[in-house]
Amino acid sequence: MFLTRNEYDRGVNTFSPEGRLFQVEYAIEAIKLGTTAIGIQTSEGVVLVAEKKVVSPLQIPSTIHKVFTIDKHIGCVMSGLAADAETIVDHARTETQFFRFTYEDPMTVEACTQSICDLALRFGHTGDEDDEKGMSRPFGVALLIAGIDPDGSPMLYHMDPSGTFIRYMAKAIGAASEGAQTSLEEKYNQSMSLEDAKLEALRILKQVMEDKVNKQNVEVAVASVEDRSFRRYSDDEVELLLAMLD
Amino acid sequence: MFLTRNEYDRGVNTFSPEGRLFQVEYAIEAIKLGTTAIGIQTSEGVVLVAEKKVVSPLQIPSTIHKVFTIDKHIGCVMSGLAADAETIVDHARTETQFFRFTYEDPMTVEACTQSICDLALRFGHTGDEDDEKGMSRPFGVALLIAGIDPDGSPMLYHMDPSGTFIRYMAKAIGAASEGAQTSLEEKYNQSMSLEDAKLEALRILKQVMEDKVNKQNVEVAVASVEDRSFRRYSDDEVELLLAMLD
Amino acid sequence: MFLTRNEYDRGVNTFSPEGRLFQVEYAIEAIKLGTTAIGIQTSEGVVLVAEKKVVSPLQIPSTIHKVFTIDKHIGCVMSGLAADAETIVDHARTETQFFRFTYEDPMTVEACTQSICDLALRFGHTGDEDDEKGMSRPFGVALLIAGIDPDGSPMLYHMDPSGTFIRYMAKAIGAASEGAQTSLEEKYNQSMSLEDAKLEALRILKQVMEDKVNKQNVEVAVASVEDRSFRRYSDDEVELLLAMLD
Amino acid sequence: MFLTRNEYDRGVNTFSPEGRLFQVEYAIEAIKLGTTAIGIQTSEGVVLVAEKKVVSPLQIPSTIHKVFTIDKHIGCVMSGLAADAETIVDHARTETQFFRFTYEDPMTVEACTQSICDLALRFGHTGDEDDEKGMSRPFGVALLIAGIDPDGSPMLYHMDPSGTFIRYMAKAIGAASEGAQTSLEEKYNQSMSLEDAKLEALRILKQVMEDKVNKQNVEVAVASVEDRSFRRYSDDEVELLLAMLD
Amino acid sequence: MFLTRNEYDRGVNTFSPEGRLFQVEYAIEAIKLGTTAIGIQTSEGVVLVAEKKVVSPLQIPSTIHKVFTIDKHIGCVMSGLAADAETIVDHARTETQFFRFTYEDPMTVEACTQSICDLALRFGHTGDEDDEKGMSRPFGVALLIAGIDPDGSPMLYHMDPSGTFIRYMAKAIGAASEGAQTSLEEKYNQSMSLEDAKLEALRILKQVMEDKVNKQNVEVAVASVEDRSFRRYSDDEVELLLAMLD
Amino acid sequence: MFLTRNEYDRGVNTFSPEGRLFQVEYAIEAIKLGTTAIGIQTSEGVVLVAEKKVVSPLQIPSTIHKVFTIDKHIGCVMSGLAADAETIVDHARTETQFFRFTYEDPMTVEACTQSICDLALRFGHTGDEDDEKGMSRPFGVALLIAGIDPDGSPMLYHMDPSGTFIRYMAKAIGAASEGAQTSLEEKYNQSMSLEDAKLEALRILKQVMEDKVNKQNVEVAVASVEDRSFRRYSDDEVELLLAMLD
Amino acid sequence: MFLTRNEYDRGVNTFSPEGRLFQVEYAIEAIKLGTTAIGIQTSEGVVLVAEKKVVSPLQIPSTIHKVFTIDKHIGCVMSGLAADAETIVDHARTETQFFRFTYEDPMTVEACTQSICDLALRFGHTGDEDDEKGMSRPFGVALLIAGIDPDGSPMLYHMDPSGTFIRYMAKAIGAASEGAQTSLEEKYNQSMSLEDAKLEALRILKQVMEDKVNKQNVEVAVASVEDRSFRRYSDDEVELLLAMLD
Repeated sequence: MFLTRNEYDRGVNTFSPEGRLFQVEYAIEAIKLGTTAIGIQTSEGVVLVAEKKVVSPLQIPSTIHKVFTIDKHIGCVMSGLAADAETIVDHARTETQFFRFTYEDPMTVEACTQSICDLALRFGHTGDEDDEKGMSRPFGVALLIAGIDPDGSPMLYHMDPSGTFIRYMAKAIGAASEGAQTSLEEKYNQSMSLEDAKLEALRILKQVMEDKVNKQNVEVAVASVEDRSFRRYSDDEVELLLAMLD
Repeated sequence: MFLTRNEYDRGVNTFSPEGRLFQVEYAIEAIKLGTTAIGIQTSEGVVLVAEKKVVSPLQIPSTIHKVFTIDKHIGCVMSGLAADAETIVDHARTETQFFRFTYEDPMTVEACTQSICDLALRFGHTGDEDDEKGMSRPFGVALLIAGIDPDGSPMLYHMDPSGTFIRYMAKAIGAASEGAQTSLEEKYNQSMSLEDAKLEALRILKQVMEDKVNKQNVEVAVASVEDRSFRRYSDDEVELLLAMLD
Repeated sequence: MFLTRNEYDRGVNTFSPEGRLFQVEYAIEAIKLGTTAIGIQTSEGVVLVAEKKVVSPLQIPSTIHKVFTIDKHIGCVMSGLAADAETIVDHARTETQFFRFTYEDPMTVEACTQSICDLALRFGHTGDEDDEKGMSRPFGVALLIAGIDPDGSPMLYHMDPSGTFIRYMAKAIGAASEGAQTSLEEKYNQSMSLEDAKLEALRILKQVMEDKVNKQNVEVAVASVEDRSFRRYSDDEVELLLAMLD
Repeated sequence: MFLTRNEYDRGVNTFSPEGRLFQVEYAIEAIKLGTTAIGIQTSEGVVLVAEKKVVSPLQIPSTIHKVFTIDKHIGCVMSGLAADAETIVDHARTETQFFRFTYEDPMTVEACTQSICDLALRFGHTGDEDDEKGMSRPFGVALLIAGIDPDGSPMLYHMDPSGTFIRYMAKAIGAASEGAQTSLEEKYNQSMSLEDAKLEALRILKQVMEDKVNKQNVEVAVASVEDRSFRRYSDDEVELLLAMLD
Repeated sequence: MFLTRNEYDRGVNTFSPEGRLFQVEYAIEAIKLGTTAIGIQTSEGVVLVAEKKVVSPLQIPSTIHKVFTIDKHIGCVMSGLAADAETIVDHARTETQFFRFTYEDPMTVEACTQSICDLALRFGHTGDEDDEKGMSRPFGVALLIAGIDPDGSPMLYHMDPSGTFIRYMAKAIGAASEGAQTSLEEKYNQSMSLEDAKLEALRILKQVMEDKVNKQNVEVAVASVEDRSFRRYSDDEVELLLAMLD
Repeated sequence: MFLTRNEYDRGVNTFSPEGRLFQVEYAIEAIKLGTTAIGIQTSEGVVLVAEKKVVSPLQIPSTIHKVFTIDKHIGCVMSGLAADAETIVDHARTETQFFRFTYEDPMTVEACTQSICDLALRFGHTGDEDDEKGMSRPFGVALLIAGIDPDGSPMLYHMDPSGTFIRYMAKAIGAASEGAQTSLEEKYNQSMSLEDAKLEALRILKQVMEDKVNKQNVEVAVASVEDRSFRRYSDDEVELLLAMLD
Repeated sequence: MFLTRNEYDRGVNTFSPEGRLFQVEYAIEAIKLGTTAIGIQTSEGVVLVAEKKVVSPLQIPSTIHKVFTIDKHIGCVMSGLAADAETIVDHARTETQFFRFTYEDPMTVEACTQSICDLALRFGHTGDEDDEKGMSRPFGVALLIAGIDPDGSPMLYHMDPSGTFIRYMAKAIGAASEGAQTSLEEKYNQSMSLEDAKLEALRILKQVMEDKVNKQNVEVAVASVEDRSFRRYSDDEVELLLAMLD
C-alpha cells in the first residue's frame, strides 16, 4: 500500500484511487511538526495560549509570534510553517479592514475565517494572474481564530490546510494536540470563567511542553466580551499567570 | 490490470485504453469516504436529511453544515470534500441571484443544477484566466439538490463529480448510500406525505449511521410546496422529529 | 507491442511510431461503454431511437436525455460521456441560433455537424484563452445528428471523437452498435416509410438491449420532412409505438 | 537502437542524437495508413483521383470527401487524418480569398501551397495565443495540390507533414503510394493529353485498391487550363470514366 | 528513508509525507557551504563581522562584499549564494527608499526584514508576470540584518531561506555557524559595550576561520545608536581592530 | 558514458555535467543528414553551388530550392531541414527590407547574418508571445550566406544551429562537407577568378555527390562584385558550366 | 554519490540535498571547454589577450571575436559559448548607451559589470514576457571586463555563469586558465608598466596555447588610462607585439 501511495501523492491536486488528496494530507502532517497551541471559549471571551520554540538563549523571544492580531476584535494562534501564517494573517487583515471600510461594521469571526479558507483552497491554480496570494501548494499551517462577534458573542474557530473550518468550545493544535485535546475534553465545562480558562489552558500546555514554561516560551492572548477586543498579553502578564498555576 | 490502471489515472483528463477517465472515478471514490445524506421528494415538497461527523465533544456541531440554502426556493445537501462544496454553493448562489436580477423570476431547480454541473466540467483547463472557480481536478463532492420550481413542482436532483445530474424521487449519497438506497427503494411510495418522508428519511439514516442519532449529528431541511421555500430545521425541530421515530 | 503502445498513449496529442493518435482511439472506446442509439433516414424524415440506462427505480427517467433538440429542424442522439454531450449540444445550439440571426435562414444539417466537429478537433491546445469550450482531451462522445435541410432534404450524420463526420442512411452507435448495424444493413431499404423506420429502429434496439424495453428506458425522436421540424416523442407516444412492435 | 529511439520520439519537437525529429516522421507514418490518391499534370491541366473507404453499405459515400476545392482555380486531394485536412483546407480557403480581396488577382498555386506549409510548421509553439490554428503536434496529413496559375500554367504540388513541398509531374500518396508511384513513372509522358491522364490515373488506382472501383469509392477532379478552374466530377462523370477503363 | 526523501525533494513546492518542504531545507544547506558571519547587538549598536574567501592573491578583496548597506540606518551581512544576496539587497534598498519617500520617515528594521521575507516566500509562483523578482526556487542565502530603529533602538534580525525571521542578541551564520554560536552563547552579556562586541565578534570569527585573518579577508560594519547610521569599516579600521585582538 | 549522455540530451536547453548543450549538438547532426553545398569567395564575387536530391523522375527539380535570394545583394544556400530554412529566409528578407526602408541603404552581409543568428538563439523561450518565429527547438539547418557589402566587398559567412557565424574564404556544409572542405583547402587560392571558382566548386561537388551531376540536381548562384547583386543561375547556365568541367 | 547527483542536476533551478545548483556548476564547466583569455590591470591601463580557435585555413580569423568593445571606455573578452557572449554584449552596449543618454556621463566599469550579472541571474523565469533576453538556462560564458572609470581608474572584473563578479589585478579564464593563473601569480607585480603587461600576458598565453601563436589566432585589446578608451589592436599591432616576445 505504501507503494501505491507514492504514485499519487506528488501531484498537488490529484486524487488517489481511494479518493484522497495526499498533498493536503501531508500539509496536515506539517502541523504535527509545529508547536502546540490551545484555545478555550467561555461566555466571557476566548483565551489562546501557545508554545514558542526558543532555539538559542541569544534569540529574543518577543519577536517570534505564534499569536497574531487580525482586527481590533479578532486574532489567531498558528501552528506549522511560520511564513505561511504571515501570508494568511496579511490576507485576513486586509479583508477585515476592507469590510470595515465598506460596511462601517466589524466583520464577524465566521466571515473572517471563511475568507481565510477561501484563500487556502486556491492552491494549485495555474495561470491565476490576478491573485498575488495563490499558492502552488496547500498552506502548511493550522489556525485557531478567536474573536468577539458584533453581537457580543465570543467565537473560536479551527481551520486546517484542507480549507475546512469548525467552531469549537476548546481546541488544541500542533505536535502535542492529541494529548492536549484529551485534557481539554476532561477539564472543559461551559460555565468556566475566562480566568479559569486561562489557567486551565496554561496548565494543559505546561503538561505537554518538553521545555519548562516561562514568560519567554509561552504566549497568551484573550478576546474579551467585555471590551469586545482581542489583546496579546505582555511578558509580565504571562509571568503573573504562570505564577498562579500552582 | 492494476498495473495498467496506474499508468493512466494520474493525468487529470486522460483516457485509459478502455475509454475511462480515472481521475473522475477516483473523485467519485472521495464521496464514498463522506457522510451519508438522503433526499425524498413527495407531492408536498422535498426533505433532505444528513449525518454530521462530530470528532470531538468540544466541537460546536451547528457550525458544520452538510445542508446549504442556495436561494429562497432551492437548497442542497453534500457529501465528500467540505471545501469543494463551499465553492459550488457560492457559485450556485451567485447564479440564482443573477437570474432573479436579470429575469425577475426564480431559477428552476434544473437550471440551477445544470449551472453547477457546468462548473464541475470545467476542471483541467489550462490558462483559463477569466474563470476564478476553474479547478485543476474534478470536484470531490456529490450533491442532492432540492427545491420548488416556479410552477410549484417539487424537484430533487442528484449531481456527481462527473458533472452528470439525474432527477430522483428518492436518493442517498455518501459512505452508507448503498444500504440507504436499498431501504429507500423498499419504503418509498409516490403518495407519501411530506411528514412521512421526513420520518422515513431519518429512520433510514439512523439505521446506517454508526453513531447514535441526536439533534447535533443530524441535519434536516425541507423544500415545501406550500410556501415555495427551502428551510433548514433548527436543533429543536430536529429533536422533535427524532423523538417521533419510535 | 502492448509495451510500445503504453509509451505513446498518454500524451493527448502525440503520434505513436505507427502514426496513430491513441488518446483519440481511447475516446472512441469510451463510446463502446455507452448506451445504444439508432438512426434511420427515409424520404419522409429521419427517426432516432435510444436506450436509457435506469440504475434505480427511484430515478425519474424523463430527466435523463439521450436525445437533444439543437434547433427547430435539427436534433441529435448521443452515446458516451453525458457531460461532454451537454457541452457539444450547447455549442451547436449557439451556432444554429447565431446562423439564423445572421442569415435569417436555418443552418444546413451538414454545416451544423461541421461546427460540432471543429469543436471536437480543438482539444489539447494550450493557452487558448478565447475559447471557453476548448478541451484538454478529446470528447468521449459519438452523435447521430438528424435534421431537415432548408431545401426539405432529410439528413442523418454520424460524428465520432476524432472529429470526423459521415452521412449515413442508417447508423447505430454505442455498446451494441455492431449487432445493430448488421441488422440495419439487412432491414434497411430506401423506400421505407418513416412509420416503418420507427418500428424497425425500435425492433432492432429491443433485440440488442439487455433490459426489457418500456416507455421509460427508450427515447424516440423524429425529424419530419412534412413540417420541417425535429420533435422528441412523449412517453405515451413511445408506449404506443412499443405496443405496435409485435 | 529501438530503445534509443523510444527516448527521443515523444517530445514533439526534440532532436534525437542522429539529428532526427521523430514526431514528424511518425506523422508521415499516419499517411501510410491513409487512402491512396494520385495526381497527374499535363499541358492541358491536372487530374486528381482518390480512393474513398466505404465502411458500411448504409454510408452515403458522397459525403466523404478526399478532394476539396480551395479556390476557383485550386483544389487538393488528401490522405491521412480527415479532420486535419479540414483544418488545412479552411486555412487555404481563407488565404486565397484574402489574396483575391487584397490584390484583385488569384493566388498562384505555389503561394497557396507555401501558406499551407507555413501552417504545418507552426506546431509545438507554446503560448501562441493569436494563432487559432496552431497545433500541438504535426499535421497527420499529406496533400496533392492542383491548380492553374494566373499565367495559365498547370501546377501539381506535393506537401507532407514536415511542411516541405515539391512540384511533381505525377505523384501518388497514401497506403499504396509506392506501387502507384512506380506505375506512374512507367506510364507518364509529358505529351499525355488530359483525357489520357484521367484514364491512366484511374487505371493505376484500380490496380492498387483492394475494393472493386465504382462511382462511389472513387473521386475525380480536374484543374483545366482551358477554363482556368478546378472542378470535382459528379458520380455520373466518374461512372462514364470508369466504363472507359477497359 | 533516503529513498523516500528522493521522491519528494525535487518539486520546489511539494510536501513530503512527513509534511516537509525539501527544497527549502536544501536551500538552507546552501548556507552551510557559505562563509561565516557574526552579528552582536549591544545597547550602543550592532556589530556585523564576516569572513571573505580570497581564492587568488590577484583578486582585489575590496570588491567582494559580504556586508551591504541597505539604507542610511540599516545594513546586512550575507552567507550563501552571492548573486541571490544582490537581488535581495536591491529589493530592500528600493523598499526602504520608497518608504522614506512615502512616509518621510525611515523604515523600521523589522519592517525592512519583513519585506525581504515576503520576497523570499514568493518562489515557485507560475505566471506571476508583474513581479520581476519572483524566483523559481527558494533563495540560497541567509542574512543578519542590523540597524537602528527610528526610536533609537538597535536591532539584529536573522532571516533564512524559509522566509522566517527572528530577532537575536547575537547570531552566527554560514559554514562555521554552529561553533561560533556556541562561543557567542558563552561570551555574550547584555551589558557589553559596542567596542567589546566588535573585538569579541572578531575573536570568534578568527577561531572558526581556516585562513589567517587579515584586513583583506574580514569585513566589519557597525550600526551605531549614537549617529543612527550603518557604516562599513575601511580596511585600515579593520586592521586596527585586528591588531587589538591579542 | 552513453548512459550519462541520455540523461541530459532531451531538455532543449539544459547543460550536461561536462557543460554541453546536447540538443544543439544533435541539431548539428541534422545537417550531416543534409545535402552538400559549397561556397567560394573571390575578389570578383562569391559563388554558391548545391546538390539537390531528386527522389523521383516525376519530381520537377526546379521547385526544390537549396539556394535562396534574401535581398538584391545577398543570398544563401542551406543544408538540413528545408522548412527551417524557409523560416530563416523569410526572417532575413524582412530584416533586409526593413533596413533598406529605414536607412535607405542595403544591409551589410554581416548584419544580415547576425540577425539570422539572433533568431537561431531564441529557441526554448516559453511564453514568448510577441515573437512569431521563436522555436521550441534549435533550427536544424546550416547556411552559407553570400553577398556584396555596400562598399563592394564580397562576403561569405557560415552559420550553424548554435547561432555562431564565421567568415570563410571557402566553406562546405552538409553530408559530404568533410571531404569537400579538404578539397577546398587544397584547391583554393586568393587570386582565383570568379570563373575558376565556379568550376572548382562544381568539380568538388561532383566528386562528393553520389548521383551523376546534371542541370537538375545542381544549383549555382553568384554574388557578383561587378553589378553588386546576387543571382541564381538558370538550368541552361548550369548546363553550360557542367559542360566546361572536363 | 554520482547517482545522487544525477537526480538533481537537470532541473535548471533546483537545489540538490547538499544545497548546490548543478545547472550553474555545469555552465561553469562549459567555460572549461572554451578558449583561454587573460587580463592584467596596471596603473596605466588594462590589457586583455585571447586565443582564437582557427578550425580551417580558409576561415577568415578577423571575423571571429573573443574581444568586444562595449562602450568607448569599456570592453571585454569572453570564453565559452560564442552566441551567449553576443547576447550579453548587446545587453551591455544598450545599458551603457542608455546610461550616457540619461546621465550624460559614462557608466562605471562596476555598474556595467553589475548590469551583466543581473541579466545572468534572470534564467529559469517562466512567463517573463517583457524581458526578451531572459534565458531558460544559465549563460555558458565567462567574461573579463576591462575599462577606465570616469575618475580615470583602470578596472578589471571577472564574471562567471553564477552571476558573481570579482575585481582582479590579473585573471585568466577558459580551458588553460589554471596554468595561466598560476603564471600570473608568479609574474604579476603592481608596478608593471602597461607595455610589460601586454608582453607578459602574451607570453603566458603562448605557453598554454596548443597552436603556435600568430597574428591570426591571438587577439589583444587595451583599456588605456591616458586616453580613457578601450581599443582592439589591429593584426599588425598584434604581430609587432608577438615579434617582441623574444
